[in-house]
Amino acid sequence: MEKIIYPHKEDWSKLQERTFETYEALEKAVRPILRRVQREGDKALRSFVFKYDRVRIKRFQLTPEELAEASNHVSDELKEAINVAKYNIATFHLTQTKAVKKIETTEGVFSWQKNVPIAKVGLYVPSTGDAPLYSHILMMGILANIAGCKEIILCSAANHEGRIHPIILYTAHLLNIKKVYRVGGVQAIAAMAYGTETIPKVDKIFGPSNEYVSTAKQLVSKNDVAIDMPVGPSELCYVADQSTNPVYAAADILAHAEQSSHNQLVVLTNAEEVADKIQAEVDKQLNELPLKKEVAKEVFKNAKIIVFKSNVESIAFANEYAPENLVLAIDNAEAVGDRITNASSIHLGHLTPPAVGYYAAGPNHILPSNGFARSYSGLSVDSFVKKINFQQVTPLGLQNVGSTVATMSEAEELLGRKNSIIKRLELLD
Amino acid sequence: MEKIIYPHKEDWSKLQERTFETYEALEKAVRPILRRVQREGDKALRSFVFKYDRVRIKRFQLTPEELAEASNHVSDELKEAINVAKYNIATFHLTQTKAVKKIETTEGVFSWQKNVPIAKVGLYVPSTGDAPLYSHILMMGILANIAGCKEIILCSAANHEGRIHPIILYTAHLLNIKKVYRVGGVQAIAAMAYGTETIPKVDKIFGPSNEYVSTAKQLVSKNDVAIDMPVGPSELCYVADQSTNPVYAAADILAHAEQSSHNQLVVLTNAEEVADKIQAEVDKQLNELPLKKEVAKEVFKNAKIIVFKSNVESIAFANEYAPENLVLAIDNAEAVGDRITNASSIHLGHLTPPAVGYYAAGPNHILPSNGFARSYSGLSVDSFVKKINFQQVTPLGLQNVGSTVATMSEAEELLGRKNSIIKRLELLD
Repeated sequence: MEKIIYPHKEDWSKLQERTFETYEALEKAVRPILRRVQREGDKALRSFVFKYDRVRIKRFQLTPEELAEASNHVSDELKEAINVAKYNIATFHLTQTKAVKKIETTEGVFSWQKNVPIAKVGLYVPSTGDAPLYSHILMMGILANIAGCKEIILCSAANHEGRIHPIILYTAHLLNIKKVYRVGGVQAIAAMAYGTETIPKVDKIFGPSNEYVSTAKQLVSKNDVAIDMPVGPSELCYVADQSTNPVYAAADILAHAEQSSHNQLVVLTNAEEVADKIQAEVDKQLNELPLKKEVAKEVFKNAKIIVFKSNVESIAFANEYAPENLVLAIDNAEAVGDRITNASSIHLGHLTPPAVGYYAAGPNHILPSNGFARSYSGLSVDSFVKKINFQQVTPLGLQNVGSTVATMSEAEELLGRKNSIIKRLELLD
Repeated sequence: MEKIIYPHKEDWSKLQERTFETYEALEKAVRPILRRVQREGDKALRSFVFKYDRVRIKRFQLTPEELAEASNHVSDELKEAINVAKYNIATFHLTQTKAVKKIETTEGVFSWQKNVPIAKVGLYVPSTGDAPLYSHILMMGILANIAGCKEIILCSAANHEGRIHPIILYTAHLLNIKKVYRVGGVQAIAAMAYGTETIPKVDKIFGPSNEYVSTAKQLVSKNDVAIDMPVGPSELCYVADQSTNPVYAAADILAHAEQSSHNQLVVLTNAEEVADKIQAEVDKQLNELPLKKEVAKEVFKNAKIIVFKSNVESIAFANEYAPENLVLAIDNAEAVGDRITNASSIHLGHLTPPAVGYYAAGPNHILPSNGFARSYSGLSVDSFVKKINFQQVTPLGLQNVGSTVATMSEAEELLGRKNSIIKRLELLD
């Protein structure tokens, strides 16, 4: 981690920059894959899966038996843990849905809003090596179930033997996801956006992803399908001071760093000695623990540990940075948390490692990054519904609101609208 | 309008296609404008405004005096109408916000969600000729005020004399929008996305638009700023049967057709005689009324009136078409409305012309189109906030949920996360 001491305010925006590939290069790589899948369907899918995943897939879709059978390969301990997480995630998200009940804005003018599930949703589950990232399925599938989506499909890359990890299949089965396909990467996004002979076109695509898949999602979202949000590499912004336990801090930092070599990391503190203690403890744990060391070291190349003159400055910096995950590992975390205006998810105090929020606290872990915490929210049940507006006018209502509408449409020089009121009022009289 | 009788099910998707320019051509036109504004700021803005709007603008921003003074040029009748609309729109949207209160998902594990206003929002108000489309400002500005956005800026093209219509300025002033800029089109989107010397960069851009501005919004949304939704040309899907009054139907259809030559129009009915009556009445009103006839005729070139065998078929077609605006001009409209799964806004019955919903019923009129009603919602207060997740764990909470998190992270082969739990539990004991 690069240590930076008392940066000038005018250098902050430079320090807040994320480091990754430019968009144009990614688009150039992604476009031809999208086009070919759109044109050639399953044939193109097979060819890209062979090229990128080095496996020949004959049958993309798993059978109901394969999904059900996966349960035999998952330990009872993990099943129990998944159940706890599922309960907490469902409890949190069940409080989210809200429709607008029928209201009468003017006498005789009724309006309301109805939540209608998005019919067909596609969940993308990335694979990192052979690790089954099944927790993403919980974060998407539980919400799709709460919303009531009719068709939930899931795409994930198979390994060299054409196998999807049983924990992925078990979790999908647990959440009643019946259509699971052995395809990952850009080609999976293309398949869900355009549809192929075997994979249905969906209305909205969800899921975290690397830069290529993210680019693919953004490209297909222009015209063909909705996407959840622009998800980039994961981010951790860690605020520490003299009250922070360096052992906890180092553990949280390493947990973030080993997760993906693209991950972004910024540690903010109010004293150089705190920075040095954390750095020393990071080095120590990195050597002692069974971590993905090469991945973590890659993250540390671009990571920064910044010393400010006060916690107030750290917080001001964090608000400008707008991180995906913000840890306030300080004494008065809840009060400080109230002053955060830009962050996707905040982990408060000394005993709230991001890992708890990530798996089991209840809130969602699929969150905007790359500065989009300024304007986007994390996944919610609302991400799986659309809200339909209704309006209904009675004869009295039309008499009450008619002149308002006529006057307003005339001012916009749209006399047809005024006429649609007048024609009715004439016949009502 | 082209009349189509009893189309085969397999031809429906063809009939549901929208007609407009392809994306690639639009991007080619839009990209250079975005790039130049990003590089050259105000200088580029000035040059594009001169090129496209034929006016030389020295000072983009209006003064507080200019905004306040506009009130003198708006009639009391219109002010009163705007007030009624403002009250109804606010009443409807005030019921929309909801945060997740603090809940305890596992004993000692607390989580909640807070609505935080998006700090800087940019509202785009298109101009059609000299008509002041001020109702869009109500639909965006009232929501931004309810959400509590700190900085609200507004961009709209000036006319040949460098003037923005006083009704636009009056409405902005009424909603406490202090920063109004004389710039429209793609260059306005670029200015709000990247910032220039005089126009601040915003976090999210809102507003209806033509295809060029829509394309610009989608392009800048990749990396630089959020946007409200992919808004395309306005759409009307009109369901009529023997109970429909052809005079009302024709008035509504003409109101939609004269609004913009890009507008999409589909009339669905269960009997050819109904189709013919409506067509005859459209022709009659088109000749009698003071409408924008050339605009309407352009819309009718691509419009369709489709005869099905029953209302049930009409409704099935409407659900597949997923229109922006759906009128159910039939007797049992509310019951039928309950069976709609894809539409942005539904106008129920014989006395609910879309004009009422458009201006004054309460619901928003900035709505997804081009089939995105399948997956997007119209503007809501949530469009102007982001939801921050919070989690906080007590010592008891960590003991309760610790093993769940440890087990789950181990299964994802992320031992750093497990370690962040263990290090804490060790020290707690």
